[in-house]
Amino acid sequence: MKVLIAMDSFKGSISSIEGSKAISAGIKEVYPEAQIVTLPLADGGEGTVEALIRATDGNVVEKEVMGPLKEKVTAVYGILGDGKTAIIETAAACGLPLVPSNQRNPLLTTTYGVGELIADAIDKGCREFVIGLGGSATNDAGIGMLQALGFRFYNKHNEEVGIDGQALKDIYKMELEHVNAKLKECTFRIACDVKNPLYGPMGAAYIFGPQKGATPEMVKQLDEGLKHFADIVQDALGVDINQIEGAGAAGGLGAAFSGFLNGQLQSGIDLVLEIIDMEKSMEGADFVITGEGKLDGQTSMGKAPLGVAQLAQKQGIPVIALAGGITEETAALNELGITSYFSIMNTPMSLEEAMEPKVTYTNLRTTATQLFRLLQAVQAVVKV
Amino acid sequence: MKVLIAMDSFKGSISSIEGSKAISAGIKEVYPEAQIVTLPLADGGEGTVEALIRATDGNVVEKEVMGPLKEKVTAVYGILGDGKTAIIETAAACGLPLVPSNQRNPLLTTTYGVGELIADAIDKGCREFVIGLGGSATNDAGIGMLQALGFRFYNKHNEEVGIDGQALKDIYKMELEHVNAKLKECTFRIACDVKNPLYGPMGAAYIFGPQKGATPEMVKQLDEGLKHFADIVQDALGVDINQIEGAGAAGGLGAAFSGFLNGQLQSGIDLVLEIIDMEKSMEGADFVITGEGKLDGQTSMGKAPLGVAQLAQKQGIPVIALAGGITEETAALNELGITSYFSIMNTPMSLEEAMEPKVTYTNLRTTATQLFRLLQAVQAVVKV
Repeated sequence: MKVLIAMDSFKGSISSIEGSKAISAGIKEVYPEAQIVTLPLADGGEGTVEALIRATDGNVVEKEVMGPLKEKVTAVYGILGDGKTAIIETAAACGLPLVPSNQRNPLLTTTYGVGELIADAIDKGCREFVIGLGGSATNDAGIGMLQALGFRFYNKHNEEVGIDGQALKDIYKMELEHVNAKLKECTFRIACDVKNPLYGPMGAAYIFGPQKGATPEMVKQLDEGLKHFADIVQDALGVDINQIEGAGAAGGLGAAFSGFLNGQLQSGIDLVLEIIDMEKSMEGADFVITGEGKLDGQTSMGKAPLGVAQLAQKQGIPVIALAGGITEETAALNELGITSYFSIMNTPMSLEEAMEPKVTYTNLRTTATQLFRLLQAVQAVVKV
Repeated sequence: MKVLIAMDSFKGSISSIEGSKAISAGIKEVYPEAQIVTLPLADGGEGTVEALIRATDGNVVEKEVMGPLKEKVTAVYGILGDGKTAIIETAAACGLPLVPSNQRNPLLTTTYGVGELIADAIDKGCREFVIGLGGSATNDAGIGMLQALGFRFYNKHNEEVGIDGQALKDIYKMELEHVNAKLKECTFRIACDVKNPLYGPMGAAYIFGPQKGATPEMVKQLDEGLKHFADIVQDALGVDINQIEGAGAAGGLGAAFSGFLNGQLQSGIDLVLEIIDMEKSMEGADFVITGEGKLDGQTSMGKAPLGVAQLAQKQGIPVIALAGGITEETAALNELGITSYFSIMNTPMSLEEAMEPKVTYTNLRTTATQLFRLLQAVQAVVKV
């Protein structure tokens, strides 16, 4: 019996690793000899770097870089087990949690630190980049990051512009002479789960600006900056960075990665599954177990359990999804590769109680035991 | 695919019948052609009469009899599909709910109405009796019932004693001449889930008296009455009615049924399973599904799901138990014939919300569907 466990964390309760341990312990109570393969999983959002580093026996790197408010911050990124692939969550250098609520103003924030992290990884020998977007405090279309990598942007007076959102409107021309030469050897894969364009009513400023502290006035100003920048890039490089799906992610970082660094934007979970070689790990498995804290309509939007299920379905492997909460909408997942889903709740209780790590652990373990007891009983019957 | 559904009610939420319908609907979503046999179940307690009448296509009988306070009450009992077997819950004629809280005094209550129900059923042709004990407001050792059936008890002055708990201490001799003659043709099977003796520190008065309204003074008096009565019976009939397991059930009704009517006391669920011929219904089933509202340590004491599981185990049929709540103690049931147990909870919620009939129905149905989807997937894999 081979079982692959690939689950997301139960956010706010237990990590993917701990949850997998609980399920593994539950299965081993029934099948002590089972071969259990555990792949910690993340959907490209919070926790992705840690999960991938664990999954590939990689390392964590700490680096002091410029934060979103142009102050020093200590950011963390990962180098995977191959020693060549850097994994960076851009939020580590320009994330909203780094900016106190009363200082949130995307006219003044920068992605410069993201560029510094990339430069550092290049120095350390990395040429493959996996970038997680999301949760940024910025709206600078990535010009901060690009400047840290040697791109230069000038105003009409031939002076270099700033590195933040308000600088976009001043850009008159760009210059590539001083760009980090090793960038040519690098490939960028970008995990991005939004499809917004760079500017306009569905763009970065209008959709994500307010949650970063922009007033309606600022939103308008930021949007004009993004449009102006896109026009400049169109003229200079012949690339339309506005219409790329996901250009507006992370305040326009999506556009910068795609337009300047030839980055490939794809869904976070697909990218993660690719990196950890999920498809290969599944081979020969009798069951795949996945799950996350809440398995609802959102999951159908392409998050972790569904990504896992779709790969398993290709190989005809039954998929069991375990969650803290399921809803009536969850039934849609049955059509998308999840054979069966179960809530691990054992009795009526409050959300707070349900999220106690010990409760989640015990319930995951018990549910796994009871399911595999049933499977064992059925197989015994079928063998007779 | 044949599935037998035999579950208790989810008390306070939905009946055995409704719960079985939900599970059946869930299974049919996966196996539309499945043969599903439903046996409504009860554990000998509340709801047993209704469940058995339904299971055997029997009838309900209404009869005006003497209530516990010697007033008129309308009591209900059942005659099973065979037309010969009466099923009586003694609480229908002498139950605690029939006595307002401020009038509870087991010195003054009587089981006379139970005897009237038995006499009525005899008149209607019944010779087999299934009696559910429990929930009585009385502590009369069944002398009320016995008097209704023609037994006579006299005091030292050769006067007939009363029919309630306080009369016990006055009994000096008994007389059997006027006993209903047809009682000799009758057999009594008594569902009884307590093992208390008639008197003493573990007896009816000390253990159950207080919840029936007896003060410590009354308890002492009642206990002395029970002991006195047992001594009289020992002398008159040569029977020790004190030590019979369950003699103290229903204020000593257990002793009366056993000592005077040759009643066989057995666990409620065993009796119920026997009556509905559960063992035969199970034959050829691929799965047995059972369950109840709360599946915990109490269940291990011999209640419905466990009784079902033990019969299924004999035939090697996997048993799935579904419950609203399970606890860590529930694991003990795995050793006692329940292959797997699951809570049907789908998300954190209050007990109140969980007990909404609609919520219970939906969750039973969904859990059944998801389990049978998994079983289907496994069988498909095994067939390949």
